[in-house]
Amino acid sequence: MDDPEQAILEATYRALCEHGYAELTVQRIADESDLSKATIHYHYDSKNRLFMRFLEYLYERYSDRLDDVSGGTARDRLDALLTMELTDAETDPDINFQTAMLEVRAQAPYDEDIREMLNAFDEALVSRLRETIADGVDAGEFDDGVEPGMAADHLATTIRGAHTRHVAVRHPLDRSYETARTYVETYLVDGSAPEVTA
Amino acid sequence: MDDPEQAILEATYRALCEHGYAELTVQRIADESDLSKATIHYHYDSKNRLFMRFLEYLYERYSDRLDDVSGGTARDRLDALLTMELTDAETDPDINFQTAMLEVRAQAPYDEDIREMLNAFDEALVSRLRETIADGVDAGEFDDGVEPGMAADHLATTIRGAHTRHVAVRHPLDRSYETARTYVETYLVDGSAPEVTA
Repeated sequence: MDDPEQAILEATYRALCEHGYAELTVQRIADESDLSKATIHYHYDSKNRLFMRFLEYLYERYSDRLDDVSGGTARDRLDALLTMELTDAETDPDINFQTAMLEVRAQAPYDEDIREMLNAFDEALVSRLRETIADGVDAGEFDDGVEPGMAADHLATTIRGAHTRHVAVRHPLDRSYETARTYVETYLVDGSAPEVTA
Repeated sequence: MDDPEQAILEATYRALCEHGYAELTVQRIADESDLSKATIHYHYDSKNRLFMRFLEYLYERYSDRLDDVSGGTARDRLDALLTMELTDAETDPDINFQTAMLEVRAQAPYDEDIREMLNAFDEALVSRLRETIADGVDAGEFDDGVEPGMAADHLATTIRGAHTRHVAVRHPLDRSYETARTYVETYLVDGSAPEVTA
């Protein structure tokens, strides 16, 4: 492996999916890679430091995915954002990863560093939603009466709730997508605007 | 204490708030009560059995609170439901309890008994919402085009997301209440809202 730090981060992802956050150890990360525990400790002097770097790495990837959301109109982009967040991927690593992230969220009150990183994720999502909704209002696609900050906050809460229910009670993400889309199409979209094509 | 089982359940609540789910032990439950570890074991032969009984006890209380939600109109009752779920209680036990419950939710994929109990909570909330919204549609308070199942599902997701964001990023519940109420007032109540097709 050319880049050991990248290899460590990818092994951390696999170990997290396999064992969850509470059971994550440097040994288990080493077991998921070709690297020794000593090599991992050479790069990151503690498990906490490694985990914070891992959250940063996830944040960079998440941020890139939000930036990559595209579409001809604000309405299309908002739909693409909801699709990105609320599509069932019936693969094990995915649900395991969401479960581990829920564990991490439950750690936030006890760990300021984790809370700060989770805040960054939350703010990235809210601001992307807000900017997209504001664009739609400006373009006349969404109703003038829509307050972008409020609607963005509501959708961010919906997305977070969809993930929690998905993990806790296996509520299908597709169903949450459907209700969120109904919210957008009924509440945001200007009655006089043309039908969505996406 | 006249009723040791009740005392054990109340001590479990305090121990859970104090130590979280991962660190919950029978010893810590005993420490929160006047009872010995042996007495607790006499009533519940394992920590898991005790914890399942504790979730049942929470469920009974939750179910009673849902039943107690009252109001002259469906719109009042829906607002009372949102207020019950989305009011900031700036007391420590409360946020600690929500944090512990988020930990429990992250356990659900690994524990069928927990998942079944969480399902019961989820279904109780969804059906109370659905029934209230359906009453409102029947009474002409809510728009005819509103599909009660869909709107109830959306609000349940919103409530769950509000709790998760409250724990993970300290997002104020009052703010989530405000956006949920805007959803209700604009989407459910507004007579000029376009028809919804599922």
